[in-house]
Amino acid sequence: MSNIDIAQAAQLESIGVIADALGIPADALEPYGRYKAKVALKFAHSIRDRPRGHLVLVTAVSPTPAGEGKTTTTVGLGDALNRIGARAAICLREPALGPVFGMKGGAAGGGYAQVVPMEDINLHFTGDFAAIGVATNLLAALIDNHIHHGNALGIDVRRVTWRRVLDVNDRALRDVVTGLGGPGNGYPRESGFDIVVASEVMAIFCLATDLADLKTRLGEIVIGYTRERQPVRARDLDAHGAMAALLRDALAPNLVQTLEHTPAFVHGGPFANIAHGCNSYLATETALHLADYVVTEAGFGSDLGAEKFVDILCRSTGLQPSAAVIVATVRAMKYHGGVEVADLPREDVAALRRGAVNLRRHIEIVHGVLGLPVVVAINHRAEDTDAEVAALQEEAAAAGVTAIVARHFAEGGRGAEELAHEVVRLCDEPAEAALTYPDDATLWEKMRAIATRIYGASDVTASSAVRAQIRRLQDEGYGGYPVCVAKTQYSFSTDPRLRGAPTGHVVDIREVRLAAGARFVVMICGDIMTMPGLPAVPAANTIDVTDDGRIMGLF
Amino acid sequence: MSNIDIAQAAQLESIGVIADALGIPADALEPYGRYKAKVALKFAHSIRDRPRGHLVLVTAVSPTPAGEGKTTTTVGLGDALNRIGARAAICLREPALGPVFGMKGGAAGGGYAQVVPMEDINLHFTGDFAAIGVATNLLAALIDNHIHHGNALGIDVRRVTWRRVLDVNDRALRDVVTGLGGPGNGYPRESGFDIVVASEVMAIFCLATDLADLKTRLGEIVIGYTRERQPVRARDLDAHGAMAALLRDALAPNLVQTLEHTPAFVHGGPFANIAHGCNSYLATETALHLADYVVTEAGFGSDLGAEKFVDILCRSTGLQPSAAVIVATVRAMKYHGGVEVADLPREDVAALRRGAVNLRRHIEIVHGVLGLPVVVAINHRAEDTDAEVAALQEEAAAAGVTAIVARHFAEGGRGAEELAHEVVRLCDEPAEAALTYPDDATLWEKMRAIATRIYGASDVTASSAVRAQIRRLQDEGYGGYPVCVAKTQYSFSTDPRLRGAPTGHVVDIREVRLAAGARFVVMICGDIMTMPGLPAVPAANTIDVTDDGRIMGLF
Repeated sequence: MSNIDIAQAAQLESIGVIADALGIPADALEPYGRYKAKVALKFAHSIRDRPRGHLVLVTAVSPTPAGEGKTTTTVGLGDALNRIGARAAICLREPALGPVFGMKGGAAGGGYAQVVPMEDINLHFTGDFAAIGVATNLLAALIDNHIHHGNALGIDVRRVTWRRVLDVNDRALRDVVTGLGGPGNGYPRESGFDIVVASEVMAIFCLATDLADLKTRLGEIVIGYTRERQPVRARDLDAHGAMAALLRDALAPNLVQTLEHTPAFVHGGPFANIAHGCNSYLATETALHLADYVVTEAGFGSDLGAEKFVDILCRSTGLQPSAAVIVATVRAMKYHGGVEVADLPREDVAALRRGAVNLRRHIEIVHGVLGLPVVVAINHRAEDTDAEVAALQEEAAAAGVTAIVARHFAEGGRGAEELAHEVVRLCDEPAEAALTYPDDATLWEKMRAIATRIYGASDVTASSAVRAQIRRLQDEGYGGYPVCVAKTQYSFSTDPRLRGAPTGHVVDIREVRLAAGARFVVMICGDIMTMPGLPAVPAANTIDVTDDGRIMGLF
Repeated sequence: MSNIDIAQAAQLESIGVIADALGIPADALEPYGRYKAKVALKFAHSIRDRPRGHLVLVTAVSPTPAGEGKTTTTVGLGDALNRIGARAAICLREPALGPVFGMKGGAAGGGYAQVVPMEDINLHFTGDFAAIGVATNLLAALIDNHIHHGNALGIDVRRVTWRRVLDVNDRALRDVVTGLGGPGNGYPRESGFDIVVASEVMAIFCLATDLADLKTRLGEIVIGYTRERQPVRARDLDAHGAMAALLRDALAPNLVQTLEHTPAFVHGGPFANIAHGCNSYLATETALHLADYVVTEAGFGSDLGAEKFVDILCRSTGLQPSAAVIVATVRAMKYHGGVEVADLPREDVAALRRGAVNLRRHIEIVHGVLGLPVVVAINHRAEDTDAEVAALQEEAAAAGVTAIVARHFAEGGRGAEELAHEVVRLCDEPAEAALTYPDDATLWEKMRAIATRIYGASDVTASSAVRAQIRRLQDEGYGGYPVCVAKTQYSFSTDPRLRGAPTGHVVDIREVRLAAGARFVVMICGDIMTMPGLPAVPAANTIDVTDDGRIMGLF
């Protein structure tokens, strides 16, 4: 059965029942249909003095074209924890429409480990991304409108850094010229569009602690510079109040359920290859006061997801993970061992052992650098052989870590019970996350620490223009911010073709963007794009709806 | 008290109670929070065999900068009908975010005649516009993606007519060049953005009879032409299924309530100065089977709103209005009589009598041309003098029509009871709407009939290029479609400064756009824009939200 067939056949509980089981009162729930709801911010704030449950971070080896199943494992682990009597909730990121209609076709787990209603979650859900898009584009319109009506702030049209967004994969919008067509249409200038998930408003949304903090951060956004090189902020344009009003409803965490009725907070969806890649702080914090175990995911491999989870999210909010799960697959290890995609179904223990170097590097990052107790979850696929699984377990054991086979894709939570027991055991051990770099390191030192300690690089380079920009940000007082690296997810290096665990490579910083409202500095390394394109045969071609309203073609 | 103060002080009924009173069963209702819901399409289709109630169309004199209160009167009349025992519901268009953050600051009625929750309705509501935006922009991305990946259909990049949309007033996006930045970003071409409400997808959404019809029409959209001048349709790109999937939930009509708990279907929101300007057919049809009287509005004055309501919506769907209300204000009559905005508060009976020529023309259109029984509603303002009101009533009487003072803005439904009685009386008279032109007139003849019979023009002109385009559309088989005129709403002519009831003017067709999925031909006359700009001091500057979530600055 395909994912969508399994999801559509599922018997869902009313969302009121799910909320009630978590102790959320009915008047704190805003229903969106029968199976989705938002949890009122007022209620979320009212429970902040309760003790926190254990936070479990799910990360993964370096992803391969097939995907390793990080979301699927987060769902399966949550279901398994509940099966063994540990009261658990999960926190996930919302899928982005662009990739759903491009390559992915869906991002709500898979097999018998999904969040539902999967069509709703994969399509517009509760409108959060739409709100983030309008807020971003309203600010853009206010910038050009200000310039058009006299430009009292003296904004330099050559130095407007704020970009518009759409939740569509549309490469034609990466670089555009706007304001053409004569004086009535404003001043022509170069600009571009990013995908919503890569926007600073998305990052702010996911890091904000409440509505007041959201509005303050929106006001702090630097949209560009004057002709005298002074920063111009969103609050200088009186834009932040309207932007916050647009985001008011969206900021309340969304609640849905897994196929096995585990409560699932699915809220915020920043891309980890450009933003910090974690679901909203508000969702995670709320879940921690309602459940004893909260399982969350951080985007892509641990070099992007776990590093940013600790160095950006935990640093700024005080969240403390108790344990981490690294998702690995036999298939991914063979891929990192040099096997081509077409040959992956064939048993190849030698290649798997070669590729396990990738897993060991991720263990070193999560346990060695970031200081978290770790277990490896082998996300089992039907074609994995016993010899391959045994070899992968040996490789993990050699790095001092238990690797447990998890069969939640085929079996649901039952298939991940052993993993759940190990996670509970790890959570009982004392743990404190360690930062990759201290707050007071310079921006350059921070980038260098990430590159050498996390990516295994020998050095960091940048053009003189980029170096000057980093120096200027340091001088202007942004040196205390963490660095948010944008780079390919497919390799520890900036070259997506370098599989395994490359060392001695050099990380080149191509571009630097200040995210003053999100309070980090983005360093874009290598060729990563902030607006994806569609493939030659996009998923949109097969996504459809029947005359009686059944959605087809999501997976 | 401001509109938002009144709305926030209101005691709302749960939307389940409102639905129940209409006879909508609980399982046919998808709640969006406590006070908004969507009515399931399955239920809407199941009641189609029931008899229809009376349909009452609210239109207005030519609008002035202050607005005449068409939505407010629709709400007040609905409330008044219920007060006098006539079971009524109302149907309105959804407000567009762009104008809310630009000039308007809100579009959900006013005073004690509003639909609520007004902040939600004015902001994202149930996400319909967001869905329409993504569907439109997904098609745009699929077009450029097809060209990028080899252009098997041979699309002429110079002749792509499909435009992207945003629900933001952003003049800088009217004319843009996309696809810059090198081969990885596709082929550069000229393009532009419209506001969501001006999009063909919005028009299709509002005219569709069910999900199957929606998908068929989406497939029929002509996105541009090949180098051989053959039309390329959305279905040639396999786009319509995905677009329909994106619109599935949105297509179900939204249900909210007025301050006095009259059921209000607020669904679809096309601009009448570019699209056909009526709320969704599905909402109106559904309401007609649930209530004895359904009051609806059509955008701007009767020259745009009522004409398109009859010639486009009624022609294609078989809807039949029983009566029409023309909203007039003392203020607007003085304005059309030549008084400047600053002097409008002063009594000026002579100017009012001069300006009443505008009202008489609208009566002639609605009653004389379109054949509907008519009453004039004088939307009362505190500063109107008795002498002015009496003069306006005399002017209407001279045209054979009763003009009734309605005080719903200040008093709610109680203030419109006399109007309601007259509407009930009119509905009992036999009536059949008449079309401005027959189906089999040519496109040019249709445009000429609208210009001469409705606008009072002496002739229609067009450049040879536009004439050739109209001829080509006629030859290609689109001659049977109605014509949807885009022109200024402020005058019967194409010059917004020509107040009153100009005659002898000439209507110049500037541009022609085929809306093959909406099944009409748009003729753009004069300087009308399909993407508004923001004013020097936009409403966005004062819209805000307090730390505890109260929205401020909507009006």
